[in-house]
Amino acid sequence: MSAMFDQGFHHDGSLDHVSTLAPEPGETVTVFLRTPRTQRDGVHVRSVRDGEPHFDAAVIDRETEDEIWWRADVTARNPITPYRFLLTGPAGYRWLTAAGLCSHDVPDATDFRLNTYAPPPGWAADATVYEIFPDRFASSSPPGAVPDWAVPTAWDEPVQGRGPLAPRQLFGGDLPGVTERLDHIASLGVDTLWLTPVFPARSNHRYNSSSFDRIDPLLGGDAAYRALIDAAHARGWRVLGDLTTNHCGDDHPWFTAALGDKEAPERGRFRFHDEEPGYETWMGVPSLPKLDWADDGLIHDMIDGPEAIVRRWLRFGLDGWRIDVANMTGRRGAADLTREVAARIRRAVAEERRDGLLVAEHAHDSTRDLDADGWHGTMNYAGFTRPVWSWLRGPQTRLDFLGVPAQVPRLSGTDAVATMRAFSAQTSWRSFTHSWSILSSHDTARIRTVCGDGSLTEVAVGLLFTLPGTPMVYAGDEFGLEGSWGEDARRPMPWSRPDTWDTRTLDVHRTLGALRKKEKALRQGGLRWLHVSEDGIVFTRERAGDRLLVMAARAAHTPVRIRLGTEAQPVYGGAHPLLPASDGLTTLPCDGPAFHIWRY
Amino acid sequence: MSAMFDQGFHHDGSLDHVSTLAPEPGETVTVFLRTPRTQRDGVHVRSVRDGEPHFDAAVIDRETEDEIWWRADVTARNPITPYRFLLTGPAGYRWLTAAGLCSHDVPDATDFRLNTYAPPPGWAADATVYEIFPDRFASSSPPGAVPDWAVPTAWDEPVQGRGPLAPRQLFGGDLPGVTERLDHIASLGVDTLWLTPVFPARSNHRYNSSSFDRIDPLLGGDAAYRALIDAAHARGWRVLGDLTTNHCGDDHPWFTAALGDKEAPERGRFRFHDEEPGYETWMGVPSLPKLDWADDGLIHDMIDGPEAIVRRWLRFGLDGWRIDVANMTGRRGAADLTREVAARIRRAVAEERRDGLLVAEHAHDSTRDLDADGWHGTMNYAGFTRPVWSWLRGPQTRLDFLGVPAQVPRLSGTDAVATMRAFSAQTSWRSFTHSWSILSSHDTARIRTVCGDGSLTEVAVGLLFTLPGTPMVYAGDEFGLEGSWGEDARRPMPWSRPDTWDTRTLDVHRTLGALRKKEKALRQGGLRWLHVSEDGIVFTRERAGDRLLVMAARAAHTPVRIRLGTEAQPVYGGAHPLLPASDGLTTLPCDGPAFHIWRY
Repeated sequence: MSAMFDQGFHHDGSLDHVSTLAPEPGETVTVFLRTPRTQRDGVHVRSVRDGEPHFDAAVIDRETEDEIWWRADVTARNPITPYRFLLTGPAGYRWLTAAGLCSHDVPDATDFRLNTYAPPPGWAADATVYEIFPDRFASSSPPGAVPDWAVPTAWDEPVQGRGPLAPRQLFGGDLPGVTERLDHIASLGVDTLWLTPVFPARSNHRYNSSSFDRIDPLLGGDAAYRALIDAAHARGWRVLGDLTTNHCGDDHPWFTAALGDKEAPERGRFRFHDEEPGYETWMGVPSLPKLDWADDGLIHDMIDGPEAIVRRWLRFGLDGWRIDVANMTGRRGAADLTREVAARIRRAVAEERRDGLLVAEHAHDSTRDLDADGWHGTMNYAGFTRPVWSWLRGPQTRLDFLGVPAQVPRLSGTDAVATMRAFSAQTSWRSFTHSWSILSSHDTARIRTVCGDGSLTEVAVGLLFTLPGTPMVYAGDEFGLEGSWGEDARRPMPWSRPDTWDTRTLDVHRTLGALRKKEKALRQGGLRWLHVSEDGIVFTRERAGDRLLVMAARAAHTPVRIRLGTEAQPVYGGAHPLLPASDGLTTLPCDGPAFHIWRY
Repeated sequence: MSAMFDQGFHHDGSLDHVSTLAPEPGETVTVFLRTPRTQRDGVHVRSVRDGEPHFDAAVIDRETEDEIWWRADVTARNPITPYRFLLTGPAGYRWLTAAGLCSHDVPDATDFRLNTYAPPPGWAADATVYEIFPDRFASSSPPGAVPDWAVPTAWDEPVQGRGPLAPRQLFGGDLPGVTERLDHIASLGVDTLWLTPVFPARSNHRYNSSSFDRIDPLLGGDAAYRALIDAAHARGWRVLGDLTTNHCGDDHPWFTAALGDKEAPERGRFRFHDEEPGYETWMGVPSLPKLDWADDGLIHDMIDGPEAIVRRWLRFGLDGWRIDVANMTGRRGAADLTREVAARIRRAVAEERRDGLLVAEHAHDSTRDLDADGWHGTMNYAGFTRPVWSWLRGPQTRLDFLGVPAQVPRLSGTDAVATMRAFSAQTSWRSFTHSWSILSSHDTARIRTVCGDGSLTEVAVGLLFTLPGTPMVYAGDEFGLEGSWGEDARRPMPWSRPDTWDTRTLDVHRTLGALRKKEKALRQGGLRWLHVSEDGIVFTRERAGDRLLVMAARAAHTPVRIRLGTEAQPVYGGAHPLLPASDGLTTLPCDGPAFHIWRY
């Protein structure tokens, strides 16, 4: 038998373990801790109130055959109230924090957290997101007039992933093309669309917006956006926009006005200086002048004013925003306005739609920007994408990752799970579960290329749909599209080439997407890690007595034996029912690559 | 041979490893990483600039027989610029952060940090602090009129550590008594005095100030404070005051005015409400009404105004402040003004004296309040006191610690060092080294009681004077005074009872205090952990080629063998010179409790 994670002690922020996910300020929240039956006293909860630790004794709420459930009250005294459990008694002195059980004192950074900021919208907890890069998704009709920057490219032509052509190839996908393909998207269990920018811009990625005031006519303009949003809403879906708050395009009227006239009111929206190219940019790219959030006019036009961009498109019909380069927005030298900008945007979103969602791009460590009155969640590259890639990448695959000057390493399951826990432990359960689990995006390689084969890809997709966090599928991943880095992987959807579809991968997406939709435990349940090793990861998702056991294996391995206490019936992966042996332990399948789910 | 910590990879914030401790904003800082000679390429430094990771290749600066010193540049782009090292190559993928070497990704919380906020005063890096609780230190003359709250108590009477007498026993120590005893204090190597509050108050601890405007006449009044400060300055010493920014006494004129008149201008300095006792307090204690830092009048009178308390006493002669209950100051429910208050105080201190010091009381995790433009350091209970106590407490000792509902555990050296690293890794080297290492204070048990015997106490004092951090000696510890909790341990100094002095402990303080004063490596050197086990801790302090090897043992143990590469000459502890054996390893003494220092 493998050692139980944390020796059988468990708490997380799911509703089996806390009485509410959205406490009011000052509300008393009941929290539950599960311990082995050997822990019969010596359980306290420590919360930090107004900066000072405060201890309350926990009492036994109920006992099961295997566990004791302890109950304690924690007052949500501050907007974020950290708490953790102190365990004393014969087994010694231990703390349980979101990082796990520890036999010595640790800082508060990994404490569990109550969060009284207004919660994310209810629908977000159940969402599956589909990312669409409009130029490459589907074309409803041949393009009309082609703009001067663009190089029209036939749908079947290869993508140029490097060099000057990369941003200029125009394949001609448009918004009606998306609207026509909603049945396909529905087949994946998706209910939320995120479109990368649709504002006019002099590039195919449109992150260098020329305007925030209208939808690019190349994509079909406002009317096509209207039709797409309406069609999505008619299905009960949500649609998210993509807003660049860190920069705009160098042909945006704000910037051209500011550049041309030192006295222009827009001058303060940018930072001009003597170094090339004469103003602050995103990462030195002259076409992306960086916005200066100390400027009141910018705040007014972008967020606060009655016709501000954030507001106007929500009123138009968007259900929320994905914020581009959120990690750098408002940060420059001594200025750090990021959290203030995030809070302003969140307030504007809430004022326009109570059920609006706000998710931040953040490619390394977003933990310090979450759990404030800003982003509801982040694109969880650091705590999901990288550990999954590192565990499942094909042994021969050589891959870059977002500027890190090292190939993505090939790590053990132990290291992969340790990475996931290291990041998730530094946010509240709520922020963690509302962050996006991502296997690929328009900024990365494709998961099919990362894994190198369909069977490892299935394991990756399995983790995407069964771990906490909002699954985000990058359009094309379901067909097994390939690509070794962001631009290389922006390949047009192969609608007319079904012979190229990786039908196994498509089936995996559809089956697991449907399962996620069906099983509340997968969407909202707690997470207990049961076993990890070099090649195998086993965990349970559970909610209100409904328990799903998940086993992911990247290779055949020594069989894992765990104590389930009962039979388990297969739900996914084709394995047999699991029966406990006479010693009470259950042996899991040792095949791999493999992905299995049972109910028990 | 025990495994080297972090497999021989090392960096810290000391001057051997960074080109400056006080970078200017935008300055390029050279950082040095030491690696084993097997790491011949694949070294990058990652810094976070404006929220985005940025990588620079490191180059080999020089090689020694055992090591390679790598060099890289990091720009101090933001007030706090996090950085860490990425190591690739045959040995795999690793990060080095202040928490050590890790084979998987980790959040930024433990990154090394450049800090461009104005640095602490130069003298603070070399200081040894002596804490004086004035009522119990020394009495220069019999008290005159005794106030109504006080119960005069003879110097030899036992301290009442609990109950209503605890705050009322007046032993009659005074400021001239301190001034008369400076020679004794000098004998400990001390150069900085911290006196707990000396403002008038209706208690012997004076944390419930009746006034911040004058020195308690019972202590000798302003003139006696003046004389003490002058005498200390004449020796080249520094004197720190103690300011309660979280609360005042309930007889302070601000509070009596506010209580008596809802329209009083002082009303806004407190928070009145309907629950008992009718206003916010410190931890429910009615005599300590909590100050509300949203009030402009309070800010003016306490910090910002020309005659503000923070400023006035610096002009009077203080060299800085220790801030009481800094962790709660400004925190209440949704309001979190702590960092803002800290920044205001720091600005006021800097305006009054460029070399002023500002240190915060903080009993659990102060890491989120440091590395801002506020406190220079903290009282490091969490990262020093608790781990040292937990390792060195006598096996039979049963001790509380500041409200934690569990006896102080008895932990291994491994857990003790893991605790120290867990906390120090979450601050910059500068904030860490300017925080106070504390064995006892007026709020805790005495170290002699914690350890239960003189030999373990010597080990504790050894760690106090040899680890990074400002040593703070609580007056009386040098005589081996005892006490099981704060009030119980506020025992009068036994000046007239030399028969009760623990002369060994006094010698240990004097010898190690002098050594700290003499050895720059102990004050300003880097720290490399070499070995830890259940009963032994070995580390090196080094600066500019001067290296001290420190071995602390709480018990006899299996001999430790390490690779020093050279002979080592005893500096403290009576051990023989150390010679490498033919296999190149050096065997350290296995006695214990013991504390040894060598130069090598």
